[in-house]
Amino acid sequence: MATPTTPISRRARPAKAPLTREVIVRTGLAVLDRDGMDALTMRKVAQELDTGAASLYVYVKNREDLLAAMLDEAFADVIGKVTGDDWRERLTSLVEISVDAMASHRGLALVALGGVPTGLNALLILDSTLALLKEGGLDDATASWAVDLLHLHITATAAEQSAHDEMAADGQTEAGHLQQANDHFAALPPDRYPMIVSLREQLLSGSGDQRARWSLNVLLNGILSTPAR
Amino acid sequence: MATPTTPISRRARPAKAPLTREVIVRTGLAVLDRDGMDALTMRKVAQELDTGAASLYVYVKNREDLLAAMLDEAFADVIGKVTGDDWRERLTSLVEISVDAMASHRGLALVALGGVPTGLNALLILDSTLALLKEGGLDDATASWAVDLLHLHITATAAEQSAHDEMAADGQTEAGHLQQANDHFAALPPDRYPMIVSLREQLLSGSGDQRARWSLNVLLNGILSTPAR
Repeated sequence: MATPTTPISRRARPAKAPLTREVIVRTGLAVLDRDGMDALTMRKVAQELDTGAASLYVYVKNREDLLAAMLDEAFADVIGKVTGDDWRERLTSLVEISVDAMASHRGLALVALGGVPTGLNALLILDSTLALLKEGGLDDATASWAVDLLHLHITATAAEQSAHDEMAADGQTEAGHLQQANDHFAALPPDRYPMIVSLREQLLSGSGDQRARWSLNVLLNGILSTPAR
Repeated sequence: MATPTTPISRRARPAKAPLTREVIVRTGLAVLDRDGMDALTMRKVAQELDTGAASLYVYVKNREDLLAAMLDEAFADVIGKVTGDDWRERLTSLVEISVDAMASHRGLALVALGGVPTGLNALLILDSTLALLKEGGLDDATASWAVDLLHLHITATAAEQSAHDEMAADGQTEAGHLQQANDHFAALPPDRYPMIVSLREQLLSGSGDQRARWSLNVLLNGILSTPAR
């Protein structure tokens, strides 16, 4: 340690990155990814940035504001990655990339559940979704309600995927999990649970990707055939 | 306080309800409803029951096990309340009652997200859903994937409804919330967010109930027109 007689020049210390809202948000995501949602506190983010929590409040209102900004930051690259030749392919791509973007930061999907998206990146996704649905021939009212339903579906699917990833991190394999569910279903009394016992193989069939793709097709087919008014 | 010289007969104290898994689960729900998810600890539930946390572990493995049991307890009366003349009406009723049952205990829907339902009441609902979908003419594979999608939808809708209820409890009215969203949308730059700015009235139109009913119709129409194989 430095004593008063051997002062160290400030210039010899590694430079701190200047504090900005963006740096705080990126640091929040890094803390979330490394330590999980419960560990994500303003204090912890401040520590990472080698500053006091009070300094953060200049740029971020509170933990809730930080979480909302982190959620929006996760969506930053979605639009640029969308591929596809027609509106339906592009919408499918948009939904899948959005789910992955959200699910890649565990717990973030739960922040989005129940909130109207207000971040600038989330709103760009919403705007593109509306444009694609209109391209698909939907009327204004149906397209408007459909973005809401698609947003809920994206959020729920991401939350589910996060939960699965967490189980995998805990050492539970998908195969082991399915085997457990199968054993559980097989042991149910068939007089009380006749459908589950007889359909249990079908209930657990298909990969996560196959089911996700089918679910999205269900939503799009349903939206196309169900006018809002 | 009683001193050693004036002992109080145990019989003079109010009788404690005998500790059972069911009593613990009901107490957990009461604590959740009154104090919220963060306050729900094994210690707190034990306090309510005037016992030590160690006594609970005879009946409940851990907090996770308690939450799973609380979730299933919330579903206890669902099947008995279902009404409707045909499979589609009954399925609609089943979904709506399930959403309400889950949403009435804030935070419980988040417990269900990402988990395969294994509680005996949840499985009864799953079994009934399968039977109704088969009555609707679906093949085994499609009906099996459809229960999964409906379960995700029920959970997500309940989580969303819980979040809205919590905002309402914080004094935010639905009208105020909509006005805020409308102002936010109207202030967006129209060159970057053309669809949102022009469709903002439609985006915020309809009651929660109308949208929920439409969403469920989208799912059912989609499921009926999208075979799994």
